[in-house]
Amino acid sequence: MPYPTVADTAGSRSATSKHPYPSFTSLQNADHRAALHYSRQMIEQRETDVRAWAHLTTEAPLPEPGALTGPLAGVPFGVKDVIDVAGMPTRCGSPSTDSSAASFNAACVELLLRAGAVPVGKAVTAEFAFRHPGPTRNPRNLAHTPGGSSSGSAAAVAAGMVPLALSTQTGGSIIRPAAYCGVPGFKPSYGFISRDGLRLTSESLDTIGWHASDMDWMIRAAEVLLPVIPRNNALSLQGARVAVIDYAPKSALEAEGRDTLEFVAQRLEQAGAQCVRIDARAHLDTLVRAHTAIMKYEFARNLEPVVSARKEGLSASLLQNVQEGWATDAGLYLEMCAYQHEMRTQWNALSEGADFILTPPASGPAPAGHDFTGTPAFNKTWTVLGWPCLHLPVRINSAGLPTGVQLIGPWKRDFDLLAYGALLEQLLDN
Amino acid sequence: MPYPTVADTAGSRSATSKHPYPSFTSLQNADHRAALHYSRQMIEQRETDVRAWAHLTTEAPLPEPGALTGPLAGVPFGVKDVIDVAGMPTRCGSPSTDSSAASFNAACVELLLRAGAVPVGKAVTAEFAFRHPGPTRNPRNLAHTPGGSSSGSAAAVAAGMVPLALSTQTGGSIIRPAAYCGVPGFKPSYGFISRDGLRLTSESLDTIGWHASDMDWMIRAAEVLLPVIPRNNALSLQGARVAVIDYAPKSALEAEGRDTLEFVAQRLEQAGAQCVRIDARAHLDTLVRAHTAIMKYEFARNLEPVVSARKEGLSASLLQNVQEGWATDAGLYLEMCAYQHEMRTQWNALSEGADFILTPPASGPAPAGHDFTGTPAFNKTWTVLGWPCLHLPVRINSAGLPTGVQLIGPWKRDFDLLAYGALLEQLLDN
Repeated sequence: MPYPTVADTAGSRSATSKHPYPSFTSLQNADHRAALHYSRQMIEQRETDVRAWAHLTTEAPLPEPGALTGPLAGVPFGVKDVIDVAGMPTRCGSPSTDSSAASFNAACVELLLRAGAVPVGKAVTAEFAFRHPGPTRNPRNLAHTPGGSSSGSAAAVAAGMVPLALSTQTGGSIIRPAAYCGVPGFKPSYGFISRDGLRLTSESLDTIGWHASDMDWMIRAAEVLLPVIPRNNALSLQGARVAVIDYAPKSALEAEGRDTLEFVAQRLEQAGAQCVRIDARAHLDTLVRAHTAIMKYEFARNLEPVVSARKEGLSASLLQNVQEGWATDAGLYLEMCAYQHEMRTQWNALSEGADFILTPPASGPAPAGHDFTGTPAFNKTWTVLGWPCLHLPVRINSAGLPTGVQLIGPWKRDFDLLAYGALLEQLLDN
Repeated sequence: MPYPTVADTAGSRSATSKHPYPSFTSLQNADHRAALHYSRQMIEQRETDVRAWAHLTTEAPLPEPGALTGPLAGVPFGVKDVIDVAGMPTRCGSPSTDSSAASFNAACVELLLRAGAVPVGKAVTAEFAFRHPGPTRNPRNLAHTPGGSSSGSAAAVAAGMVPLALSTQTGGSIIRPAAYCGVPGFKPSYGFISRDGLRLTSESLDTIGWHASDMDWMIRAAEVLLPVIPRNNALSLQGARVAVIDYAPKSALEAEGRDTLEFVAQRLEQAGAQCVRIDARAHLDTLVRAHTAIMKYEFARNLEPVVSARKEGLSASLLQNVQEGWATDAGLYLEMCAYQHEMRTQWNALSEGADFILTPPASGPAPAGHDFTGTPAFNKTWTVLGWPCLHLPVRINSAGLPTGVQLIGPWKRDFDLLAYGALLEQLLDN
């Protein structure tokens, strides 16, 4: 039997419920087909329940042995269905789009292909990467939302179908579903990764990122997708200064989310880090106002071409947001854009000079039901800043639902943040 | 006869050779069709020579009388063929693209449509808005280049075919063809206008703008396309502080370009402005290095999807630039991006506190021939800064070729710059 089956491999990393599926790393083999084969098996087994995919290519022939080269040779990945993949439609979770195939890969997809990775399909997105949910269910507990808008990307990785899936965040669309589904999720620095081939909703906010099954995969993808500069290999949690922020405007942190945050802060201190509680309310309250003004103003202008042509296929919540965007004052919008530009480089002012910020990724575990993808209150402020945001899963409750923490670093110091994330993953795994 | 013909109207603003065609303003009538009708006549008369269009809709029925509403009702406009118009193909000046029609309008096109304007076609672009020229010839002198990459947009406006055409600039692709063709051209502040529906080449630089037949049309378009805030109506050239910069890195200003610059500086001083010569060499030399690093690094990543799929249709100069982009050091790229971010708000440091900068739009008039679209040396530095840039035509030489000046204002102070431009146009017209 040339490829491992699900039965062969399941459980190889299942010692903790945090990683219920085998690492794809162990499935990479010389002819580059084992991981693809396993991915297809997992999709076949789980997709009926999870509904992570808007489009699949699992019927296509596997690549010839040795046909793929590069650091991600033979690695199956998903692509949020607002990003173009040549030969597949880009439906944006909306019947108002066309079913014709994209001519070219998005720049970020092309980078993964150059590295030898193989796109297995388009992952479900909330309608135009906004609120109206797609059919995806949380693979940890099917009665709960996977979060949004990158629902399919987070769910596909959490269900063990792919080790990697491209996603996007405008409010909290990468970090929140990562938290709800219990997988690492990463929103790189604003401006760090080209949005060529992405259906835009807000130019000042939209950021392409990805979900990955662990920090090893997270960093392997980063090395392909981001500008790579010499690493600081001396980073350590011992002596690291961590700014702990438990506040998000207009939202309350649930007990379970707080417990997880405190648990991680405690572990960090045990490892020699210095955790300092920061009161960043003043900044965060303005940042969330900035998010609202910028997002609505730009959303209206970017979605109007669809509204004017094919309004009947659009949800009430999208139309409402477009309407609010047209009503947003241009003066307020410009003021908030200027504030955004200024704050982007004010890391020390907000973090009090920390190495990274530790903050909740969401108010708590995934809410029950599938109509509401949860609140992005713990994400919007950081998206406005354009700082890199990383989610790490930490615990699973009795309902099978995960909670985790969000790490945030200074603008364009993405690899430092990922390194801290890998150190923390290691600390939590032990 | 319901509509004015070319013979009826030609010459109504032809007192100066700067405005050889009638103002479209006089052609706007109650049923909104006179300007469209005239546009079609001009295209029929001039297109064989000028070759401004990649795609035309002149066979489509004219809109019903009164069917159009808004501040630009019935105004014909062109769209550079790197920007989507629903129902028309987006060919990017390249056989490597598809001939299928775009499903949706770009956000900027939709804004003009909402204002009642009518897209008459797609204007020729250099290959993927870079260097390799399209078939367009300079309407002022067919033996000369119209400049690039927004060749068709500038030429169509200069030939009197449309009063308005959308364009883009990454290096000097709006201002230079505006100068060579002798029409006003405007590159708004970076981030001021959505790039939804634009084929990206460099996210940190690409900016949508437009060419217009005069400053009245320029401002009418700005009021539709940009965030509109209450105007400063007290602006005057009397007492204005003007920073005159005659330098561009790696280029020499020709005698004719210098004469025009000095002529305008003199007129401004006669009008009570205070012109101060600024030595901005140190900043400009770094800015041009920033442009090269940022543009090449991002160009490679954004064009790679086309290179990998359809290399055979691409020019040698494009492939060369992609190759140079892959060879560009990531550390240098990031350093230059940080410098760009910082300099964007350093207006006073570079302009010494001026109200606007006066600088050449190009090294001189349009070069002879059609293989080389001219140097963007006088534009790249300002594009990196993201500051609004405006070209105003000033004089015509004995070969019929124009020279003009470039006005530059602080980031996101676009309407102030446009107001100064209108005052200067008025001053030069008198």
